Amino acid sequence: MDFQLLKTASKTKARLGIITTPRGEIHTPVFMPVGTIATVKAMTPDELVQMGAEIILGNTYHLFLRPGHKTIEKLGGLHQFMNWKKPILTDSGGYQIFSLSQSCKISEEGALFQSPIDGGASHLLTPELAIEIQECLGSDIMMVLDECLPYPATPLVAQESMELSLRWAERSLNARRTKAALFGIVQGGMYKELRKEYIDRLLELSYHRTLAPSHSFEGFALGGLSVGEPIPEMYDLTDFCTNILPQDKPRYLMGVGKPHDLIECIDRGIDMFDCILPTRAARHGTIYTTRGVVTVCNAEYREDPRPLDENCDCYTCQNYSRAYLRHLTNAHEILSARLCTLHNLHYYMSLVREARFAIEQDRYPEFKKEFYNKQENI
Amino acid sequence: MDFQLLKTASKTKARLGIITTPRGEIHTPVFMPVGTIATVKAMTPDELVQMGAEIILGNTYHLFLRPGHKTIEKLGGLHQFMNWKKPILTDSGGYQIFSLSQSCKISEEGALFQSPIDGGASHLLTPELAIEIQECLGSDIMMVLDECLPYPATPLVAQESMELSLRWAERSLNARRTKAALFGIVQGGMYKELRKEYIDRLLELSYHRTLAPSHSFEGFALGGLSVGEPIPEMYDLTDFCTNILPQDKPRYLMGVGKPHDLIECIDRGIDMFDCILPTRAARHGTIYTTRGVVTVCNAEYREDPRPLDENCDCYTCQNYSRAYLRHLTNAHEILSARLCTLHNLHYYMSLVREARFAIEQDRYPEFKKEFYNKQENI
Repeated sequence: MDFQLLKTASKTKARLGIITTPRGEIHTPVFMPVGTIATVKAMTPDELVQMGAEIILGNTYHLFLRPGHKTIEKLGGLHQFMNWKKPILTDSGGYQIFSLSQSCKISEEGALFQSPIDGGASHLLTPELAIEIQECLGSDIMMVLDECLPYPATPLVAQESMELSLRWAERSLNARRTKAALFGIVQGGMYKELRKEYIDRLLELSYHRTLAPSHSFEGFALGGLSVGEPIPEMYDLTDFCTNILPQDKPRYLMGVGKPHDLIECIDRGIDMFDCILPTRAARHGTIYTTRGVVTVCNAEYREDPRPLDENCDCYTCQNYSRAYLRHLTNAHEILSARLCTLHNLHYYMSLVREARFAIEQDRYPEFKKEFYNKQENI
Repeated sequence: MDFQLLKTASKTKARLGIITTPRGEIHTPVFMPVGTIATVKAMTPDELVQMGAEIILGNTYHLFLRPGHKTIEKLGGLHQFMNWKKPILTDSGGYQIFSLSQSCKISEEGALFQSPIDGGASHLLTPELAIEIQECLGSDIMMVLDECLPYPATPLVAQESMELSLRWAERSLNARRTKAALFGIVQGGMYKELRKEYIDRLLELSYHRTLAPSHSFEGFALGGLSVGEPIPEMYDLTDFCTNILPQDKPRYLMGVGKPHDLIECIDRGIDMFDCILPTRAARHGTIYTTRGVVTVCNAEYREDPRPLDENCDCYTCQNYSRAYLRHLTNAHEILSARLCTLHNLHYYMSLVREARFAIEQDRYPEFKKEFYNKQENI
């Protein structure tokens, strides 16, 4: 994997770049649709390509439990299994272990957890296994296993967690057997000191390996944000971290966020985003548009012949009325999930495309202002 | 609406025809995907067109209750509402009143029923209202309201029901205000005598109107079949009825059926079919293929890299393995419903296309034999 920083805006930290992988180029800032369990919910790969998706995310935790990474490997890897030919970033499974498992015990070795789906079987996820799973899947960009802190966490807990996660990060680097990229993850709770130390020590880990450059981190992710803290604090920490992170590696803000979060964090130097929001919200009839959020099942749309977003050229907006989508959503029709997901993802893809264009034209602050001016209800 | 009988097979009663409507031609024998509530579940109209669908079915009962025929009329009719430009056949709502409503009282005037969705409100569906709803929807082919007999029904009950339904059929003819086609429905339970009398009297009703030809029936449906009777009896009654029905009108066997039912009933002179089976079964992982039924969630497909049907050129079979579809189905993913529905409908569409081709070539008996020879598990 290679990252080329094409341009940094003159008045903000917004950056334009290209990540090159054997499976294709990724233009940053990028939004990555989440394909949890080998499918971006309700979408075909063709539809994702058509809306401009250049990379999607797969969840190691879910795929490990079902259908199993060995099964996917036998079937030719995740790309072939799900018919997606462009790059895939996989997470390490850590976040889901902490948020979805019935119980989770952390030891030096790894995270012992009970599966919620296969009769409560116990599994030990180690940093090495997390890499092995991601390599079996055929991931293009892998993530290290890290401990996910609860929010809020005391400084002591955060410090101890950092020490463990750094040891895991080193083990992850050592475990890698393929040429897939590997990103380090910066935790450290809401403590700037810790975030700084975390970054320094991840870089140190990486620089120790300059003799074997394929074993250093190809990028850095910010973890443990958007976990319940006030949004200004999230922005502030992001800003703080991107001041320290190296310029020549992509920065990935994990699990963020709403459209204006993308706008703000691109402004603060983030290159990569993923979030389940556009897909999950769509399935509940919450629609993102250039003018703000439309709750499509509201009674006011009962006879509304207008598209979800009059400024949108997606298939949904070109062919269907709010009234029809309201009807489908209220009737829990599968087509509602399809059409709303298609629109929401198309909206996110258009948003980052416009952001990239604004950076290229060096008018990001103006673009940001226009974005907020158009929003009626956020 | 116009029906042109192009050809009848030399050794069987299989027929080739074209129904012409202002919204397009329908080549018969035809299978009509069911779009109950203004959507063929999980499919877009584009996908239906691509697989060769020339007409779909809409359910008056469901659309009357939600979102309401007046709402749909305001929004430009059902075609515009759901973005389907080809013909739509609507049923009268009768069958659903009897099968889905919490209570239903029949009087001379109509059927009084309680809605299962709007807090149990009472509605009186009369023959006139059934026509009005269908006209508001903008249906291309409407059906008369009839009483649906329970199975089994005594001869006396069947006779009385026929008398009422015939009076309703006449009222339906009188109620029509547009040029949409209207089909009569032949009931009569499992009694051949009654079926014959029913057909004779429907024809009589129709012929009485030769001075106003737009007010006669443009086709005839067989109702009350495939309701629990032995399948050979269903075939036998179908055969009996098509011997009496006029040659120059399309015959529609309502709610039937499995692939081999289509093969058998085309053989007996049926032109039109609809059934929820391919769409509903798909959502439960039951797949129809040229070699028989595949239950996609079976463990045997866990690592099966083959497509659902190796003889199929649908998007699903061209791009996905049984293993992947099994995984999606077990995980209750929306994409599973999409891909399996696409395949099943594509299979039904291919089956009737091949049947039409066989009739054209006057080799229907050979085609039928080949169909059964390929099936491994029916």
